[in-house]
Amino acid sequence: MIKAYAALAPAADLTLIEYDPGPLGRQDVEIDVDYCGICHSDLSMIDNEWGMSSYPLVAGHEVVGRIAAVGADVSHLTLGQVVGLGWHSGYCQVCASCGSGDQNLCAGAQGTIVGRHGGFADKVRAHASSVVPLPAGMDAKTAGPLFCGGITVFNPMVQFEVKATDKVAVIGIGGLGHLALQFLRAWGCEVTAFSSSDSKTLEAKELGAHHCINSRNAEEIAAAAGRFDFILTTVNVKLDWNLYLSTLKPKGRLHFVGATLEPLDLNVFSLIMAQRSVSGSPVGSPATIKKMLDFALQHEIKPVVETFKFAQINEAMAHLKSGKARYRIVLER
Amino acid sequence: MIKAYAALAPAADLTLIEYDPGPLGRQDVEIDVDYCGICHSDLSMIDNEWGMSSYPLVAGHEVVGRIAAVGADVSHLTLGQVVGLGWHSGYCQVCASCGSGDQNLCAGAQGTIVGRHGGFADKVRAHASSVVPLPAGMDAKTAGPLFCGGITVFNPMVQFEVKATDKVAVIGIGGLGHLALQFLRAWGCEVTAFSSSDSKTLEAKELGAHHCINSRNAEEIAAAAGRFDFILTTVNVKLDWNLYLSTLKPKGRLHFVGATLEPLDLNVFSLIMAQRSVSGSPVGSPATIKKMLDFALQHEIKPVVETFKFAQINEAMAHLKSGKARYRIVLER
Repeated sequence: MIKAYAALAPAADLTLIEYDPGPLGRQDVEIDVDYCGICHSDLSMIDNEWGMSSYPLVAGHEVVGRIAAVGADVSHLTLGQVVGLGWHSGYCQVCASCGSGDQNLCAGAQGTIVGRHGGFADKVRAHASSVVPLPAGMDAKTAGPLFCGGITVFNPMVQFEVKATDKVAVIGIGGLGHLALQFLRAWGCEVTAFSSSDSKTLEAKELGAHHCINSRNAEEIAAAAGRFDFILTTVNVKLDWNLYLSTLKPKGRLHFVGATLEPLDLNVFSLIMAQRSVSGSPVGSPATIKKMLDFALQHEIKPVVETFKFAQINEAMAHLKSGKARYRIVLER
Repeated sequence: MIKAYAALAPAADLTLIEYDPGPLGRQDVEIDVDYCGICHSDLSMIDNEWGMSSYPLVAGHEVVGRIAAVGADVSHLTLGQVVGLGWHSGYCQVCASCGSGDQNLCAGAQGTIVGRHGGFADKVRAHASSVVPLPAGMDAKTAGPLFCGGITVFNPMVQFEVKATDKVAVIGIGGLGHLALQFLRAWGCEVTAFSSSDSKTLEAKELGAHHCINSRNAEEIAAAAGRFDFILTTVNVKLDWNLYLSTLKPKGRLHFVGATLEPLDLNVFSLIMAQRSVSGSPVGSPATIKKMLDFALQHEIKPVVETFKFAQINEAMAHLKSGKARYRIVLER
């Protein structure tokens, strides 16, 4: 039996349940959960914001733990090995995306907390292909948020070949943005942080930003016209996207990893006149996760976390909702 | 003196005027205009749709003619040489875009019909850097539309590295679209035409389309979910862009060359879940124009044109407005 913190209904507090995961699949592994980060998507799923939740719902998809059992066909992971598990816990392995190394775009990919139970638990299971070992020397306690927040901001840098000579910006300095600042700084870029909170200016600079612009000051934004090659937006609210488009250089890209629900009312002239692109992406493939972990270790990039005990999970969720977490919450035993 | 057909006020009929172009600039050339295509942008400028017209306005920016005079500093073009002139008639030559071969994105580029007089005339002038010789063997009469319509659809294929193995689509089979079908077919792609007009189906296939989809049939479009790597849209009306986004594969791109005035109300989830891009671009650089001309000659790609005498220019404009031109109008002497 697995002990897990579940929402029994939309937006409910989490309560301890036990469930029987059944026999271990031949290609699956079971992980003893040591740490689990909390992502905004956990909240969205608990609240059924995206209409795809089923209850009881066990959230948690920034897992770090130790391999507790391996299926009969799994030979590349060993008992006790420290691994991470992110948004995906399995891929179809046969589609064109999987065959091209884009498992994260597989239409048949399994979400760790979509139709199955996630990491707010003592154990979690996943297909072995979705589990990535931590590189030797990486701090297990802070690594969890790399497996969703981290890979979400790192992946577009790889996909769109962000260059060290690029001038880049990050909109929203929270769970995702504070990692983006660190990655982009280590990537060699000139980094600007857009934040609505002046209180974050000093912290954003410590995290890697060379410059800060208040995202509530339209004049300050307009003054950055034509400045950036690449803007990564991590927020889930509606901003004046055409104003941000105007801060892109010719051939610049405005890239969305924040799941803003309102349509983007983009001015097509602004795209045409300067050959600008707008795009989005989800998390990354296991190979890109491995690349990210190695890069993070090499450059001493770490999620800045606040920890709560698993037993305090409802307090942790309340802290997340308050918007005051700096910058990511991690649950520990 | 240059004799030209000018609009004396917004949306006015064109009347013959004479103007003195002054002394020829040291880096400029004068072209004897033999042919001039008519582009929708000529109409938009005559009607001051974009608020940047000045009158008298001489439109015409798909010029083919012969070098009649060269400025003192021009050594690479010779008298009598057959050349073309498109949307741009000069570049700043010192900005980062110009220095990177992206003269078409130069913020200081001069529009051939923006604040200067274009090719609805017996002669036109331009900076020598913006004039591109026709390759030997190219038909001068039909080449004009390549210099705006042609390069506008060809340039994104170069910029975004469309591959021969890509499945591509073109929305809108008119002046631009009928050239896009030909270029993409010759590029090696599987080509689909989206058109609101069933009457164009046969012609679209003759132009290079393997498949046709009626753009007014939402069910037919929805059935193409996840099919295309690259969609080029040439229309200037609002369509259900999110429906078209859904027809893109993971990593697919919806690219705008048609200057639709209404904002694109894009669903950010559709961008994120499949790493899709939306972008736009204007015409191309002189180097890309040369590349396009060579490719068109090699593959026998030609604008399909209807010709009018310069003296019938108002009839030609009326034919353009009627939407019945198949597919581009060219003025001849």
